[in-house]
Order: sequence, then structure tokens, then C-alpha cells
Amino acid sequence: MSASNPDLVHALRGGIVESFHRGALAIVDADGATVLALGDVQRPVFPRSACKVMQALPLVASGAADALGLTDAELALACASHGGEPGHAATAAGMLAKAGLGTEALECGAHWPYNDSAIKALAAAGAQPSALHNNCSGKHSGFVCLGCLLAREAGRDPAEFVRGYIRPDHPVMREVTAALAAATGADLDHAPVGTDGCSIPTFAFPLRQLAHGFARIGTGAGLSDGHARAARRLRQAVAASPFHVAGSGRLDTRLMQRLGERLFCKVGAEGVYGAALPEAGLGVAIKMDDGNNARAAEVVLAAVVQALVRLDDDEQRFVQGLSDAALVNWNGITVGRLQAASGLRGALRGLRA
Amino acid sequence: MSASNPDLVHALRGGIVESFHRGALAIVDADGATVLALGDVQRPVFPRSACKVMQALPLVASGAADALGLTDAELALACASHGGEPGHAATAAGMLAKAGLGTEALECGAHWPYNDSAIKALAAAGAQPSALHNNCSGKHSGFVCLGCLLAREAGRDPAEFVRGYIRPDHPVMREVTAALAAATGADLDHAPVGTDGCSIPTFAFPLRQLAHGFARIGTGAGLSDGHARAARRLRQAVAASPFHVAGSGRLDTRLMQRLGERLFCKVGAEGVYGAALPEAGLGVAIKMDDGNNARAAEVVLAAVVQALVRLDDDEQRFVQGLSDAALVNWNGITVGRLQAASGLRGALRGLRA
Repeated sequence: MSASNPDLVHALRGGIVESFHRGALAIVDADGATVLALGDVQRPVFPRSACKVMQALPLVASGAADALGLTDAELALACASHGGEPGHAATAAGMLAKAGLGTEALECGAHWPYNDSAIKALAAAGAQPSALHNNCSGKHSGFVCLGCLLAREAGRDPAEFVRGYIRPDHPVMREVTAALAAATGADLDHAPVGTDGCSIPTFAFPLRQLAHGFARIGTGAGLSDGHARAARRLRQAVAASPFHVAGSGRLDTRLMQRLGERLFCKVGAEGVYGAALPEAGLGVAIKMDDGNNARAAEVVLAAVVQALVRLDDDEQRFVQGLSDAALVNWNGITVGRLQAASGLRGALRGLRA
Repeated sequence: MSASNPDLVHALRGGIVESFHRGALAIVDADGATVLALGDVQRPVFPRSACKVMQALPLVASGAADALGLTDAELALACASHGGEPGHAATAAGMLAKAGLGTEALECGAHWPYNDSAIKALAAAGAQPSALHNNCSGKHSGFVCLGCLLAREAGRDPAEFVRGYIRPDHPVMREVTAALAAATGADLDHAPVGTDGCSIPTFAFPLRQLAHGFARIGTGAGLSDGHARAARRLRQAVAASPFHVAGSGRLDTRLMQRLGERLFCKVGAEGVYGAALPEAGLGVAIKMDDGNNARAAEVVLAAVVQALVRLDDDEQRFVQGLSDAALVNWNGITVGRLQAASGLRGALRGLRA
């Protein structure tokens, strides 16, 4: 921890910086060349949910998505950290039904929805959340669908076959981990291994490699043909159904609703963000030191999008409002601003020049 | 922002540091001598809600608390950032009633309770939150009670007199600001001024001075007789009714339920904490760079309490569990630890030796 990453986001109040967020940012092209590195982009970081699109590659590349007739919404949910809104839970249930299974197949655990309205609606109905409301239920339903295909190919009972799919040595998880390694080029056999919030393994590797993986996801370059086609299909599915990758009011949904296939972006826990900028052929990876997403990584991502994605004037204003936002108190009074630091802005301007 | 504060808290996963929190810590005695300074304790910081006990001094010192017959629970609520639980909202309503006024007198704005169960109960009842649920409603009710006394003394109508009490130049707010300046020794006339979440002014001054203010609150030394008596009464009220200073499951409540008058501690927004350690005659102030409370400032406070407050073995174990806590995922699996950094531990050990 001795190296000090630059401050990338400032929270201002009363004319001074009240709080600030340090972090690292890597922008890499599909050949793996580093276009911008701010802070330590070699330190191993857990990508957490930012890499879900990479973990979903086998679902499509295996043929499982086609065999089960998964829709755009379902493929988007397979890449999602969703808010547990009714539309998310129902879509996950639909994916499981296509695999001939039910909620009991999910091994992600249950938690109350992230979405406030969904919490209140469940509470008002006297209901409790299930694993369908877990923000990772779409990814896990995708794992179950992949497992269903593998079971059929092996002549095995799907329910029995998929059980324990969260274990590192399960055939499903081996496929998922191999896809992540192939996309990022990371040596996962020798990487620090942790357990993610949803109980699957998560591997720590350099932020630079996560950015490289996103450049490949955005361009297909450096991927196998099957993975390249799968990446394109997943990006198109998310662009067609951005609600399902996050949810009401969430940044990934809001950005991709506006920008469509010009951007694929995905939040991960602990202040991680990954993004593919297909037109520029670039991949982006962000890790905030303090693990803050909503107030830090999101602002950095917005500044990157503003600088490097082709935007019309309306879109510029929209994204500017995300990278330099008013902080408003309970009476609706503007009390400060949350903004991308000038050093970050300057570094991004340098790239465009 | 060029100076780099030390990392005080580490979040570990898979055997490595996943995220970390930098910040500053000041421990000062009642004479103003700095006992420990980690990081930049001279940078102006907004104390936010950490200084509510100082802002409540005039409520007691003026005689308003006695004139209106405020209880321990009500005085604790005047110092509180509460969870908006039914007991908190009812206590605020009771304070207003003693002033002969209602919820409409509050100028803090409304928000949904911080407490999850309170949110769900309101939603299940089809109700909306009011200003009584605002985490600052007790402080504001205290301001209204103080205004009620000032109105009576001036022969004015309380409802008319208290209106606009959140303005810096209102007689109520002038008393409140003067008490903060007297306790901390900060030159608030020349300090950066912001607007707090509840719309009253907040002033930025060095963390060292906030710690000095807490040393005075804990000992009475350096305060006027009236303020010293008020500080003692407020500390005793919070110790007698710790639920009212925060709420179910909240750190301030949990710590003071266990430790009583050996500790007065108070969270503030944006990663600020203040504490008085009366037996040691010390004041403590914490500001995390990133503004994180639940995961950063709280852990630092727990490490300070563990090192500097007289604790029996059970209490040691309890506080150790707060300064080195398991991180558990949705399936109840321990996936990491959240712990005070070794540098912080070492510096605190040095103080005890």
C-alpha cells in the first residue's frame, strides 16, 4: 500500500474539497498496448462483477444460449448486477425454467433487492427476498443454463449435474474461469483466489489485463472465433435490453440506454469498473482504492466516456452531468459537487489530442 | 490533496488487500496538547454531525432543557444521528410538543429512515417519511426547544420566532455556532462555510481542534461553567439512553450501551468521527479521506477505544470484533476481513506504553 494512487474524484462542499477518492485507471488497446495508465495498474485486483460478460462467454459459445432459446433480456441478465426489480427476478426465473429447473438450483444466496422501490414493494406485500433477487441471479442462471447443456451432452440429469456449480473444480466453473483467463490473458492458475459475494471464486490480476480483456470484448481481436461471436452477441443483447444489466436509475443501464453499442460498461464490487469502447478499439478498467462505486468509480467512468466515446451535444451534456454532478441535500439545496479531478480530465484530454 | 494520509483500514480478500481507506486521526488532551497525530490533522474538515453534542450545549446551558423538562432520551436525541425508528420519531415529536409546536416547525427536510426495518415498516403501512424520520430531527427539535425559550424571554411567539432557525444569522443558530467555536477554539468567522445535509451551516476547521473540543466535552476543562455542566449532562443522558443517539445495530449505540460514561462517541457524515475519553482526559477526531463511515471511520474508532479505554475481557473481545471483523457473503461464508491497519495499531500501542 506504500504507492499512492492519484486522486481521481473530488467531493466539494463550501468551496473546499471535503472528501476525495484515489484510484487507478488503465486504458488498453486490443493488442495489449497501454494507452493510459494512471496509478498502479500492475497491482492484482479482484475484478468482481465487472468481468461478468467474460464469465458469460461459455453460455453463448457452448451453444447453450441457442439450445435454450435465451432472449436478449436473458443474455443481458447473465451479464448483470441487477437491482432485484420484479422484471429482473422474473427474467432469472424464466432462464431457470428453460433449463427445466427452479430457484432451488441457484447457489448465490438471497438478499434484499438493491432497488429501493423493490424493497418497499416486497415489504408492503409481506414477502421475503429469494435468490432470484440476488444481484447475481442472472449470472448464476446463466451458469445453470450452461450446466444444463453440459449435462445433456454427458447424458446426465441436469439438476444433479449442476449442483455445486459454484465450486472452482465444477465443470461449469472450469469453463467460466477458462473464458476469463482467455479474455484477459491473466495467469489465473497462480493468481490470488478469493470468494465472491455470490460464492464463486474470484481471481486477482493486474488492472491492465482487465482493460485488455475489455478491449478484446469490444473488438473480438485476440479471442477465439467462438468467444468473439459470443462477445458480440452479449454486447448486442445488453444494448438491446439495458434495463436487464443493472436496473432503474443505475449507471450501466442509463449509459447504455443512451449510447447503445458505442459502449459496454459494467460495474463490479469494491470500486471496480470495466468498459469496452468498440469504436475506439479500447478497453477500460478502473479500481478505486477505497472500494467506492457509486461515488467514485462511476464518476471516473463517466469522465472516460465523455472523453473517448463519440457523443452528440445532448449526450455530451448527459455524460457531463455524471462526471460533474451537484450534491443536493434533503431540502433540495445544492450543497456541493462531485466531480472528476482535474488531473484525470487532463490525462484524458491528452489522449484525444 | 498532494499530501498522502496513511492507510488506516484494510479490507482483505483471498489473502491480499482488496481495498483500503486512508485518513487522519488526532488525539488531543484538554490542554490542547497533541498526543497522537496520524496524517494531516491541520487540513480544514467539516465536522458534520460529529459535533452535535457541541451544538446541543446551548439547549442545556440556556436553561431550555430544564424549562421544558427534557428527558435523557430527548437530550440524547438532540445529540443524535438516528435511524428514524419509531422510537426516534416519537421522541422528536415529544420534544416539539413540549415547545408547543409540531412537525411543521422542523426545517431539516424529510428522508426515508436509515434503519432497514423502519423503511420496511413504513412501506408496509403505505406511509411516507416525514421530517421526524430525518436523522437530524432530534438536533433540530433541540434547536426548536432552544428557540422556544429565547422567544419566551423576548416575549415573542415561539412559532414565529423559531422560523428560519437554520439560517446562520438566526438567534438560535448564532448560539449554536458560538458554542461550537467555544468548545473547539476554532476561528469560525474565517472558516470555510458549507451547508450541511440538514441545511444548517457547517464550518471546516482542523481535525486537531475537533479533537480538542471532544477533550473539553469529556472533561469540562476549558469550557465555561455552564457549558461544562451542559456537556456532563448531555454525556450522562446519552449513556443513559444510547438507543436515542443512533439506533438499533448502530455503532455509537452499541459502544455506549456497553461502555456507558467511559466513552462518548459520535459519527459524522463523510467519514468523520469524534469521541471523548473522559477517564483518559482525551479527545479523538477521525476523518477518512474518502468519506467512508461504516467501513472505515468506525474501524478506526474501535481500534482507538480498544487501545485507550479501560475495558474488561468481555469488552475487549467485543471491541476487537469491531476493529477486526469478518466479511461475510450472502451465503454466510467468510470471504475476508475488515481490520485496523498495523500502522494504526502500532501507533496506538505506543501511546499506552
